[in-house]
Amino acid sequence: MHSPPPCWTQPLPKPNEHSSRQAAERQQILTKPPGSLGQLEQLAIQLAGLHGVEQPTVDPVRITVFAGDHGVCEEGVSAFPQEVTAQMIANFAGGGAAISVLAGHLNASLEVVNLGTVGEVPVLPGVRAEQIAPGTANLTVTDAMTEAQACAALASGDAAAGRAAHAGCRLFIGGDMGIGNTTSAAALACALLSRSPEALVGPGTGLDTAGVSHKSAVVSRALKRHGDNTDPLTVLASLGGFEIAALTGAMLGCAARGIPVLVDGFIVSVAALVAVRQQPDVREWLVFAHRSAEPGHQAVLEGLDAKPLLDLGMRLGEGSGAAVAVPLLRAACELHNRMASFADAGVTDRDQSESREGSP
Amino acid sequence: MHSPPPCWTQPLPKPNEHSSRQAAERQQILTKPPGSLGQLEQLAIQLAGLHGVEQPTVDPVRITVFAGDHGVCEEGVSAFPQEVTAQMIANFAGGGAAISVLAGHLNASLEVVNLGTVGEVPVLPGVRAEQIAPGTANLTVTDAMTEAQACAALASGDAAAGRAAHAGCRLFIGGDMGIGNTTSAAALACALLSRSPEALVGPGTGLDTAGVSHKSAVVSRALKRHGDNTDPLTVLASLGGFEIAALTGAMLGCAARGIPVLVDGFIVSVAALVAVRQQPDVREWLVFAHRSAEPGHQAVLEGLDAKPLLDLGMRLGEGSGAAVAVPLLRAACELHNRMASFADAGVTDRDQSESREGSP
Repeated sequence: MHSPPPCWTQPLPKPNEHSSRQAAERQQILTKPPGSLGQLEQLAIQLAGLHGVEQPTVDPVRITVFAGDHGVCEEGVSAFPQEVTAQMIANFAGGGAAISVLAGHLNASLEVVNLGTVGEVPVLPGVRAEQIAPGTANLTVTDAMTEAQACAALASGDAAAGRAAHAGCRLFIGGDMGIGNTTSAAALACALLSRSPEALVGPGTGLDTAGVSHKSAVVSRALKRHGDNTDPLTVLASLGGFEIAALTGAMLGCAARGIPVLVDGFIVSVAALVAVRQQPDVREWLVFAHRSAEPGHQAVLEGLDAKPLLDLGMRLGEGSGAAVAVPLLRAACELHNRMASFADAGVTDRDQSESREGSP
Repeated sequence: MHSPPPCWTQPLPKPNEHSSRQAAERQQILTKPPGSLGQLEQLAIQLAGLHGVEQPTVDPVRITVFAGDHGVCEEGVSAFPQEVTAQMIANFAGGGAAISVLAGHLNASLEVVNLGTVGEVPVLPGVRAEQIAPGTANLTVTDAMTEAQACAALASGDAAAGRAAHAGCRLFIGGDMGIGNTTSAAALACALLSRSPEALVGPGTGLDTAGVSHKSAVVSRALKRHGDNTDPLTVLASLGGFEIAALTGAMLGCAARGIPVLVDGFIVSVAALVAVRQQPDVREWLVFAHRSAEPGHQAVLEGLDAKPLLDLGMRLGEGSGAAVAVPLLRAACELHNRMASFADAGVTDRDQSESREGSP
């Protein structure tokens, strides 16, 4: 495959404004002071528009974790060795990783896509073998991916969106696993946001101050090699990773199929930034789950005009922050769909009382 | 009943430090970078200490909503008429209120305690009739409650904690319903935090700017009448409400019985402030769920040294913000109890890799 999947260029659907409006009107008649459910009201209204129904629901939920290794690890940019990527794929399959525990707890289906690791991954239940190469190239010396590799990763993500649509999923979460991927994500964000590495590079899985400085210098070298090209596919191939490109493809593929995406932390948000630069209309299909403790996330969120639901200091990846936010979407839908109206419950509404009794 | 319940003065239990330490050690060996689950790690460790087990759980969850009317409503301090308190009690019982929907969704048991309303409340399933009086007195002209009434309300709250303990509940949420109660809560907070009404009075269920100014003047008159007495029981009787006093009693009663409390928004946090002023040791039993949009909440949270889990712009009361946060506690426990260790999953830990390969 040498060209991007159709969702890369074909027009994306727009949310259903009629359904959003119906949902907004419904919020006004429920037995609560208007606006008193805060962001949960906006969530219900947004989901109504995305699903094209007055009363939305987010179940079933699909979680797909994309994994891949990064050639830049040879520069010593991570606190963990590269073999951990493959080991963690086995941990996902075995049920012991954070995202495995959360998926089970949330009754969400979990799928793992192995796009290529340095370590060997045996055949494992729930793990799709879609290896592109045993890791990307070292982005300080050459493009991380060829354009054909980047397109293959985009297509893997798009295919995951297709499987979610086929299974009738109403919410998609993409997760990431890849030792070294905060280096790649920081480089992508710097290139797309025209920011300096000092502003966007952070400790990742746990570098100390010296480690962060070194990582920042590595990103600087990568950016110098890359130059100032901001074409999304070129930037993605030059500075990205297999799992990041797959996440970008998955988000575009979900939007193309009418599935809202709950966006995780730093890595997934950078993949979203690439997607939005290519197709601005994808933005409306994204709900932002949490603010990561990785310092660069803030700038990426600002670049996406995103206000996430949670700020719990999480920085694990795997889609874990998005999974933790799923119950907020469920609560927003339950409240929206099941609360009584003032009329049905025989509760005096504010407007009634004002017209009858005068304002306070 | 003319004296406060035993939890008002008897020493409260301390969290189990051994269990907290075991839980903290467990967090270090799970397959994730240390600290990467952010506040969820601290939550699991805190709950371990409160329950005295290495692997805590918060189920079953009990939600008790305390309702009562406020004499200060004759000053015109609310956007809704007083009859709504009684109407909403019926809505709680009928399943149409926000907290009813959330309780059902969360599989939490919901109990409503009617401490006295202006409107009549028929016999309803799930509603306990514990009327003290048909509302408090107007706190601008006299004490809102006699000390005997305040003690009766404290005892109602303590009894609710007793029922939760008897039912084996591992988490307690107190909710409030009472038109006019943000006025009472703001007055209490001003008296206990030595702050001005301008700093703590807000729109409640939806006053406009003129309404907030008027409400602020009402609180000023109440504080002038009250004087500078800061004895918790005196302040509570003078400026509180039945449901606020019951919430204070419930929190102390839960701590006395070893049940953690998930604290809702402005009203419940003010009740917590009263509880902490009387018994500082109750603070360790409190987990703060969310930051309310009611502006005074911020100062109350600071007074309690509390960093809530959620900040969704909610301001509904009823315990709804706490209910929305329950899944975060469940997720924290699930991750803590079910994730694999590095050793069990065969994943290379950071320390192993550093000793073997040198730091990056």
